[in-house]
Amino acid sequence: MPTALIILAAGQGTRMNSDLPKVLHTIAGAPLLAHAMAAGAGLMPERTVVVAGYRSDLVQGAVADIDPDAQVVVQTERKGTAHAVAQARAALEGFGGDAFVLYGDTPFISLATLEKMRATRRQHEIVVLGFEPESPDRYGRLVMSGGNLERIVEYKDATQQERAIRLCNSGVIAASAQTLFALIGEVGNDNAAGEYYLTDIVGLARARGLSATAVTCPEAETLGVNSRADLARAEAAFQTRARNEALENGVTLNAPDTVFFAHDTIIGRDTIIEPHVVFGPGVSVETGARIRAFSHLEGCHVSRGGVVGPYARLRPGTELAEDVRIGNFVEVKNARIDENAKVNHLTYIGDATIGADANVGAGTVTCNYDGVFKHHTEIGAGAFIGSGTMLVAPVTVGKGAMTGSGSVITSNVPDEALAIGRARQDNKPGLARKLFDRLKARKAAPKRD
Amino acid sequence: MPTALIILAAGQGTRMNSDLPKVLHTIAGAPLLAHAMAAGAGLMPERTVVVAGYRSDLVQGAVADIDPDAQVVVQTERKGTAHAVAQARAALEGFGGDAFVLYGDTPFISLATLEKMRATRRQHEIVVLGFEPESPDRYGRLVMSGGNLERIVEYKDATQQERAIRLCNSGVIAASAQTLFALIGEVGNDNAAGEYYLTDIVGLARARGLSATAVTCPEAETLGVNSRADLARAEAAFQTRARNEALENGVTLNAPDTVFFAHDTIIGRDTIIEPHVVFGPGVSVETGARIRAFSHLEGCHVSRGGVVGPYARLRPGTELAEDVRIGNFVEVKNARIDENAKVNHLTYIGDATIGADANVGAGTVTCNYDGVFKHHTEIGAGAFIGSGTMLVAPVTVGKGAMTGSGSVITSNVPDEALAIGRARQDNKPGLARKLFDRLKARKAAPKRD
Amino acid sequence: MPTALIILAAGQGTRMNSDLPKVLHTIAGAPLLAHAMAAGAGLMPERTVVVAGYRSDLVQGAVADIDPDAQVVVQTERKGTAHAVAQARAALEGFGGDAFVLYGDTPFISLATLEKMRATRRQHEIVVLGFEPESPDRYGRLVMSGGNLERIVEYKDATQQERAIRLCNSGVIAASAQTLFALIGEVGNDNAAGEYYLTDIVGLARARGLSATAVTCPEAETLGVNSRADLARAEAAFQTRARNEALENGVTLNAPDTVFFAHDTIIGRDTIIEPHVVFGPGVSVETGARIRAFSHLEGCHVSRGGVVGPYARLRPGTELAEDVRIGNFVEVKNARIDENAKVNHLTYIGDATIGADANVGAGTVTCNYDGVFKHHTEIGAGAFIGSGTMLVAPVTVGKGAMTGSGSVITSNVPDEALAIGRARQDNKPGLARKLFDRLKARKAAPKRD
Repeated sequence: MPTALIILAAGQGTRMNSDLPKVLHTIAGAPLLAHAMAAGAGLMPERTVVVAGYRSDLVQGAVADIDPDAQVVVQTERKGTAHAVAQARAALEGFGGDAFVLYGDTPFISLATLEKMRATRRQHEIVVLGFEPESPDRYGRLVMSGGNLERIVEYKDATQQERAIRLCNSGVIAASAQTLFALIGEVGNDNAAGEYYLTDIVGLARARGLSATAVTCPEAETLGVNSRADLARAEAAFQTRARNEALENGVTLNAPDTVFFAHDTIIGRDTIIEPHVVFGPGVSVETGARIRAFSHLEGCHVSRGGVVGPYARLRPGTELAEDVRIGNFVEVKNARIDENAKVNHLTYIGDATIGADANVGAGTVTCNYDGVFKHHTEIGAGAFIGSGTMLVAPVTVGKGAMTGSGSVITSNVPDEALAIGRARQDNKPGLARKLFDRLKARKAAPKRD
Repeated sequence: MPTALIILAAGQGTRMNSDLPKVLHTIAGAPLLAHAMAAGAGLMPERTVVVAGYRSDLVQGAVADIDPDAQVVVQTERKGTAHAVAQARAALEGFGGDAFVLYGDTPFISLATLEKMRATRRQHEIVVLGFEPESPDRYGRLVMSGGNLERIVEYKDATQQERAIRLCNSGVIAASAQTLFALIGEVGNDNAAGEYYLTDIVGLARARGLSATAVTCPEAETLGVNSRADLARAEAAFQTRARNEALENGVTLNAPDTVFFAHDTIIGRDTIIEPHVVFGPGVSVETGARIRAFSHLEGCHVSRGGVVGPYARLRPGTELAEDVRIGNFVEVKNARIDENAKVNHLTYIGDATIGADANVGAGTVTCNYDGVFKHHTEIGAGAFIGSGTMLVAPVTVGKGAMTGSGSVITSNVPDEALAIGRARQDNKPGLARKLFDRLKARKAAPKRD
Repeated sequence: MPTALIILAAGQGTRMNSDLPKVLHTIAGAPLLAHAMAAGAGLMPERTVVVAGYRSDLVQGAVADIDPDAQVVVQTERKGTAHAVAQARAALEGFGGDAFVLYGDTPFISLATLEKMRATRRQHEIVVLGFEPESPDRYGRLVMSGGNLERIVEYKDATQQERAIRLCNSGVIAASAQTLFALIGEVGNDNAAGEYYLTDIVGLARARGLSATAVTCPEAETLGVNSRADLARAEAAFQTRARNEALENGVTLNAPDTVFFAHDTIIGRDTIIEPHVVFGPGVSVETGARIRAFSHLEGCHVSRGGVVGPYARLRPGTELAEDVRIGNFVEVKNARIDENAKVNHLTYIGDATIGADANVGAGTVTCNYDGVFKHHTEIGAGAFIGSGTMLVAPVTVGKGAMTGSGSVITSNVPDEALAIGRARQDNKPGLARKLFDRLKARKAAPKRD
């Protein structure tokens, strides 16, 4: 049965107190919307429709990044969830399969849960996702009768008896697209808020004699984000899960609570991650590496045996071959560094390739930017870059070549050559003493008006 | 009714195990004493008297910083709280208003609580601040009768029935200064410790027919600091509150537990603070900025749209205009940086102004110190400072000017000029090979005795 | 009574999911095995025998580091704990004292507990260490009768009545070596796993009429490590204890949860440790120092009044005299820095001595490595190293000498001399403008194929 996703992402999220639409706030380096779409994507949907509203331009841009095949429709007025789903009607005109309604601010619904809903659809026309929260509070309740869902009742409309029900409504629904839109056409807005509620379709379906039921998932999957505090809690929930997975996969985390992963971080077995490390998106680390304290990695690959940090910053496009060492206060960007090369101290490597076994001294800079363009630096295998070398790109230092400390390298250095560019040292006897004396005298001098 | 504060700050705090007086230990970057005085300051007192004792010289110095109008009196012997308050008598000679007795080691009493005490003073001669702790333990108990406070009984003197009372004594008291000192004159020291207890004034007041009562506050406000562990707990309580306030104000904290605020930090809406960030005192950040991981800010201002870090250190006197970017391993001190300027990598900017749209390359240093004096560096709008430039202050780089990588700039650079100061590069063919071979040979050579 | 330790360290630790033997995973910078051996070492044993198995080569190497006098024997097949202990028989041939059986993956048994076992050995032939866990779960139970231990029963073999026993078996046993090996010789492997269980010796002893008993310790001491999650928990337990000890010793920790100590860290009274600090092994800090945020220290000594960080990295061999300041983005390795010297910004000091009151400017590098050898740099008292100085070692800068900013110092600088080595600055009027214009024109130019 072909599948379509309808993802509701129209709200501003007033309680976020933000100019950014709620679904574009991030956890683990990806927008809430991307998390919400990811599980659904596991169903291999033929169509994905995102219903945007507030700042739909921004949502559209984000969707283009997340899934270029997804279609964005705009809900210009906010008249309730049924009205929001109705905006997807034209986009799914003639679509003969199942539709899943998901929420852009509910990032943790699992693929397993959606697959359970899909399997249950074989027996029922409508499948609603329920959960049994620790504190049911003011959630809507799922009124079951035998294995059938009779209706969804809002907390405020519920009788005392209904409020005793522990099974609550997550809002996630699966039905054939045809049935869904047909039922939505019947939903009215005769309620206090004057809104069209998607939940009403269950009662309408039952009245038509269609069967409905509920499947359940752990409460944690239904965590929704309505405030920055919720966002922080969702981030924490993600991180806890990611840290536990890393530990199970044979990664050592000395201090799990101080390590932050992105949604797509991959860490190999027997890699050690010291305290206070942050992973941005796009990082993979092979086995047996060590990521030392206070390191920050984004968009990079660390091969087997690599040692990174402490205080190393690897930016996007960094590719470290096996046994490379990147040391403290070193920034690397858009660079490939070959086997066993070392960049140990206080260095900026940007737009460069560094050959195997090369050694880059402290205080080296690849001067890659001329104010308008970025240029490439190439350092050959086995080269030795003296401390404080300025490599003015585009420039090549040959294999086995060497640069003298403090040199500014503006033209290519042949293989095995020594390049040096510095002034001769001149010692002026007694001059330091004289200078200090003069400065101290000036300091001691009485101030004049 | 004019108000005076009497703040008890005489103790060493033996359990702190410190040479520093207890009230000078800090939370959120300010001494306990400053926190204790801050709420009281909200009452707009006409007089503030701090009773110092242990290392009163240090306390005096701190008070001069916190509130230059406050008066410090010294309790030379420690004979109990009533004796401590009595030291303020001369300072408040003839003062006709109310006195509030506060404690330098109790930092979280709120202004709202003090205002409630003040309002209650209209009906009662003496107002004591009580609280209902989760575990009343060994606190003194407030013995109420109807709405009246009859007396304060120490736990060890309390009957079984009195120990069942849940309302405990915080020590904070408000009364007219006249009444307070009159009652204190009657307090005796006929007890095991031979001390004069402030709590005794309630019983004495009742015996005179004066009315007393209690108002209450949440237990959290009464948290006192007696050990380093208490201090850490107080800091944690402060931070939790500050983080929650930031979230409510529309600030994103990806990992609230790893971000530390100072007592006066101001962060604008839609600013994002990444994990592992520390704010020292005196920081304000406008809306829509991003403070990246591992950054450290003190005494600085970040304008709208600024991006700071990762690993940026902004020190006092740093003023960033809109959309400025300060990158990794960059230290900025006492500098104004104008719109859209960039200082992205491994740089020290101290005592400088940098014009709009200027770009400062990696490894740049403003050489502001000559061993005795500090000097100023000025970089014009749109200037391009090549990597590894040493700017020997005082020096000016003009608008739209440029410095060559690795140059030492000792004299001013005119607008739109290129300044360059570096030796010519010389390539010595084969010399690197020869040097490496010689070193390796020496390494391999048999050691002689 | 002379004492021998038998430490079982043969397992791979399958649930660790690691190529490294379980006992070599570290907490607080030392292998589990070192922690396990440390408490035993407090008994001043005459002999220590470690029973290795999986990757015994690696265990052997670690033992050589931890205690060169310890003997490693190899259990080539894993046939149970009694079989493991039996491997130590030859090594303890003729040894007339007591043997304690300890476990390499159980790092927190205290010396006090072992001493209690030793004292109890005077009254009983066999002393087993028990504990009363919060959740006894599936631990083996100690079946006592009066003050005597009758037998140890595995959970799965226990009756309902035995399962109600709360006293559980830690596995730690003390007995005379002679008795121990005699009893082990009688242990059979007639059980489901076909293994020889050390626990069986208690029943065998009782059958012979030997007396046995149990002493108890807190559950926390018996924490064993079987997975990376356990390892993280053990690390957390260690850190909590270390932080509390520091607080009790009069150290201020603003944010204890973000500070990580090593097993041997020593911090003096009235030292302040800011948030986000990591101590590797071998660090001692005297009183009244301040370790600022984001600092990383290993193998170093900080004297009274020193200020380190933020973002300072002190590596092994760093010795700071009183009142030294090491500032941000500074790395120091194998260097002695004398009283009141300052290295405040973006500097690498390696293999060096720096005299009292010297000032090292930003961007300075000791160029200590020539690609093969490391060389020494000496900076005299009161010297002033200008920013961006490259000190090409071996080199000496004399007392009160000065180097000009951006100089490369390749030969010694006499006392009080000024050394300068840099090209003259040349201002080329209008050239920056011309260069920018050219670059911008190129950027704007239409691309050709």
